[in-house]
Amino acid sequence: MPSREDHPVITLHDARVLVVDAAFTEHARGWLRVQGTLIVGVGAGDPPPLPDGQSEQRIDVGGDLLMPGLVNSHCHLPMTLFRGLGEDVDDRLFRYVLPLERRCITPDTVRTGTELAAIESIRAGVTTLADMYWFERTIGEVLDAAGLRGLVGQTLATFQTPDQGSIDEGFALVDELVERFAGHPRITASIAPHAPYSTGIEVMQRVADWHAAHPDIPVQLHLAEMVSETEWAAREHGCRPVETVDRAGLLGPGLIAAHCLFLTEAERDLLAERDVRVAHNARSNAKAGRGIAPVEALRARGIPVGIATDGPMSGNTLDLFAQFGPVAMFQKLAGGSRAPMPAREVIRMATLEGAAVLGLDRCIGSLEVGKQADLIRIRLDDPRVQPVWDVYATLVFASAACDVRDAMVAGRWLMRDRQVLTLETPRVLADVAQVARAFGAEMIRLDGETP
Amino acid sequence: MPSREDHPVITLHDARVLVVDAAFTEHARGWLRVQGTLIVGVGAGDPPPLPDGQSEQRIDVGGDLLMPGLVNSHCHLPMTLFRGLGEDVDDRLFRYVLPLERRCITPDTVRTGTELAAIESIRAGVTTLADMYWFERTIGEVLDAAGLRGLVGQTLATFQTPDQGSIDEGFALVDELVERFAGHPRITASIAPHAPYSTGIEVMQRVADWHAAHPDIPVQLHLAEMVSETEWAAREHGCRPVETVDRAGLLGPGLIAAHCLFLTEAERDLLAERDVRVAHNARSNAKAGRGIAPVEALRARGIPVGIATDGPMSGNTLDLFAQFGPVAMFQKLAGGSRAPMPAREVIRMATLEGAAVLGLDRCIGSLEVGKQADLIRIRLDDPRVQPVWDVYATLVFASAACDVRDAMVAGRWLMRDRQVLTLETPRVLADVAQVARAFGAEMIRLDGETP
Repeated sequence: MPSREDHPVITLHDARVLVVDAAFTEHARGWLRVQGTLIVGVGAGDPPPLPDGQSEQRIDVGGDLLMPGLVNSHCHLPMTLFRGLGEDVDDRLFRYVLPLERRCITPDTVRTGTELAAIESIRAGVTTLADMYWFERTIGEVLDAAGLRGLVGQTLATFQTPDQGSIDEGFALVDELVERFAGHPRITASIAPHAPYSTGIEVMQRVADWHAAHPDIPVQLHLAEMVSETEWAAREHGCRPVETVDRAGLLGPGLIAAHCLFLTEAERDLLAERDVRVAHNARSNAKAGRGIAPVEALRARGIPVGIATDGPMSGNTLDLFAQFGPVAMFQKLAGGSRAPMPAREVIRMATLEGAAVLGLDRCIGSLEVGKQADLIRIRLDDPRVQPVWDVYATLVFASAACDVRDAMVAGRWLMRDRQVLTLETPRVLADVAQVARAFGAEMIRLDGETP
Repeated sequence: MPSREDHPVITLHDARVLVVDAAFTEHARGWLRVQGTLIVGVGAGDPPPLPDGQSEQRIDVGGDLLMPGLVNSHCHLPMTLFRGLGEDVDDRLFRYVLPLERRCITPDTVRTGTELAAIESIRAGVTTLADMYWFERTIGEVLDAAGLRGLVGQTLATFQTPDQGSIDEGFALVDELVERFAGHPRITASIAPHAPYSTGIEVMQRVADWHAAHPDIPVQLHLAEMVSETEWAAREHGCRPVETVDRAGLLGPGLIAAHCLFLTEAERDLLAERDVRVAHNARSNAKAGRGIAPVEALRARGIPVGIATDGPMSGNTLDLFAQFGPVAMFQKLAGGSRAPMPAREVIRMATLEGAAVLGLDRCIGSLEVGKQADLIRIRLDDPRVQPVWDVYATLVFASAACDVRDAMVAGRWLMRDRQVLTLETPRVLADVAQVARAFGAEMIRLDGETP
């Protein structure tokens, strides 16, 4: 293996730099230096010269913003293929989503949907994501080829899934996934029991046992998302959903809990006590009419909360910028004041705190020396964002995914000037069109009419 | 004046056409024909040939969407200059916004701020807007030059404003505005008492008298926006804000009421009875932590409700696409279900119903023969929106302002391929930068620290 000195050096200069460290350091005009996969320098003013003889590639970013790549802390990538289906209909999961998946989801459609999702994510400045779905090995392979970073969570459920005939088969898929990505620098396998109501305490117990033997593998779970879930826990176990997870022994430091809408004060305390981390799906929850997650209350207890898009059949896109406004607005609405959830906290959640949710904050999430070079470059010259008085407010309330110009993961450019470099966009869009045509007939059969 | 036959004909074909008529007519592959300022044909399939000898310009839009231009039913355009200032601070109006305006707002800064706003609006597919601000004549002149359509409302208030030393002077500005734009085909003067609490019943009575003499001039008013307003009405008049407007004789068919958050059931009924129309500022209201306007309840009573951005110091942008998601989500949140506010209703509010709020629905708001040719062309080939199963859901939850390719008002192209044709964007951005530098010192003096 070559020594670090052999790796090429890239120095980005004349940049506005948001470090997103504990002090929210901002360089109005600064620079950042990458060597190999790592950030090796960052600062204000002009970049210092390199030691004698070392060459570098210098890139003038012309006042654009450099910031850490965004972290999407919960999604179902292949559901890009279903975006816009089943809108405005309550009680969709069992009536609509799962039958659709059983008919349409195969390794091939998963591949195509994930390729589309990867392109969309890169173009929105997302460099790391946590996915949970079916045929997760395929998803991991696509993310790897796309150059993205992520957790890939093989989902387990007791209902009939597209990829497993039994829970035993589900665990076999998990084991295969873990083996496939063992030691991978960017792709981390994860085990994802679907939800308390869709696995039951026994399966969650088995996951807890499995997790005890694999303590480094994160667990992903939908939790406290639906009223029907609360009713299930009361009816079946005489308790609340969080307690079913706790009884199963799964409520611990390895757990990433998505949604967490319906929580009592005691449950919030318990999540904090057990070092659970939370993925907040603002738009998806609101579109479902379910409510506003108590994000301020959870963060006040020290619980890391990341921002998430959920699957595109629920939230329609994988665009984290489209979440920023809602994340802020919902907490202000819930608090009855402008004060909750200031813009810079939203940006922290989308980067460093999202990385902490995924257990990756020592590796990514801020532009600090020694971290992986996962970063995005954002233009600030669109008339829609000018003038820039407060760059965090600009990012949260005025910027858009299309302002992301470049994206880098582990020192590798995934996008330059809005062109994704790691996937062939026209070929993927053609594949998507073909899959959508094939889906057409299934859609009609499902509900008796074209959805 | 030339006869209509002398006007050039433009035929757009191979378009997906959203008519936004009562039946929500959609042509999966269709065409639209413009002659002079008017839509003279629209339909499915291929455009029929013109009568012998008539020439036309044919434009293949390659499957892009054609739909009516968007209507922003309430804004304060020059406040683009203040976007991102005073974030996360409660009680801003008297502590922050008004002092800032007194120091910084002149005809020159209004011109620059409005030029920036016009560019931003056109690029977001907004072709018609209702503004209320100071130095409104200048705003009308900029909108006219930009080729936009709009109501321009000279604001009146009893607090010290940047443009009037007394209410008499305010009325003089209104009269001047009305004279300036009399008979203008696109710019309509409007009278805009600021709000009940900031004008008082006597001034509102004087506006009502003035309006009785000018029944065709729309009235714009902030109404039922703040808890402090409800407290003012109770304290000063022993009633609710809506009743103060009613006592003044101003609650009638000419009134466009912005916000309408805090309304009793009886007040909702009264607004419907009096043919008042409402501008809904979803993001602005939510960012202020004020609440969710009862849009479903108002529309159920037959009240036309338009979508609005409010000023960019409150809502940060003039991008109506950024409102679509919140408009839908907030009603679903308030209703506790996915069912309220289906996507196509959001699109109706942003077009035909918004036009009705402004009193322009016989002239614009849908792509029907005989209406003004105010339309936008939107690309549907971005990976973020593909595949398109439900084009209304696509527009509301996945599309973005940057997808708007072309914009036309009254048969004139204001933008082609994202280039605004009626204003020089680089010159305007340079002017904005200069104004922002000049503002800098004022900002520092205002709060003792840089905002």
